[in-house]
Amino acid sequence: MDPRVSFITLAVADLDATRTFYVDGLGWPTELDVPGEVLMIKVGERLVLSLWSEAGFEAEVGPIRRGPGLVPITIAHNEATRAGVDAVLAAAEAAGSPEVRGAEHRDWGGYSGYFADPDGYRWEIAWNPGPVGLIAVPDTDPDG
Amino acid sequence: MDPRVSFITLAVADLDATRTFYVDGLGWPTELDVPGEVLMIKVGERLVLSLWSEAGFEAEVGPIRRGPGLVPITIAHNEATRAGVDAVLAAAEAAGSPEVRGAEHRDWGGYSGYFADPDGYRWEIAWNPGPVGLIAVPDTDPDG
Repeated sequence: MDPRVSFITLAVADLDATRTFYVDGLGWPTELDVPGEVLMIKVGERLVLSLWSEAGFEAEVGPIRRGPGLVPITIAHNEATRAGVDAVLAAAEAAGSPEVRGAEHRDWGGYSGYFADPDGYRWEIAWNPGPVGLIAVPDTDPDG
Repeated sequence: MDPRVSFITLAVADLDATRTFYVDGLGWPTELDVPGEVLMIKVGERLVLSLWSEAGFEAEVGPIRRGPGLVPITIAHNEATRAGVDAVLAAAEAAGSPEVRGAEHRDWGGYSGYFADPDGYRWEIAWNPGPVGLIAVPDTDPDG
């Protein structure tokens, strides 16, 4: 099995709220939009973000964990500069994110903040000038 | 904000068990390996999978949801053929996946199954001959 991710799927409680945030708010185009079922967005060269109704997800994958606390995953979107990070967090707030945490300088040498989508999934917005960050954003500015 | 994912981060309970599965079992090379803290693997042209200790995740992101049931996300790895799907599921079983569900033909026209990693994160292994599947695996075989 080669190390390769093709889709990231998030189960969502209300697909209309999800559409309002990602499509209307952030302005992302969809590859597939089946109301009440699924919304798919291209988020990389060979990568698709699938926002799937909880009912559909549970019917195929199984009962999901419910309760307080965060889902133990994040999705990161890296920017080439620190100013880019701040701009994206502002855009997420304008798009209606229910929670935005402004960026901070991190021990690992970068600068990042977080926003939540309507289901509380956390997106990390990061400027990462290290070697691994360069993989994700080849035009990363070392001076940020 | 352009629609782009740079990193996928999963909080993991035991990073040694995670390494045994992904690195020793599946044979995936690492970009960064800090024992007890984090393991990073390149899983796309500009995409990194980050396996982060729960303690580190919780300190930066917040308390995670615990309890029964599945984390409401999946990561998919698409293959160009149905035989490729079966081969990957067999490889995951050989690598020590705690749970493998053999592939089935799906209503949407594809063929997919699932395996769990040591924390129970579900990977979907799929052959998807539809238009969205073609984005993720350009060499998808329409005859599978």
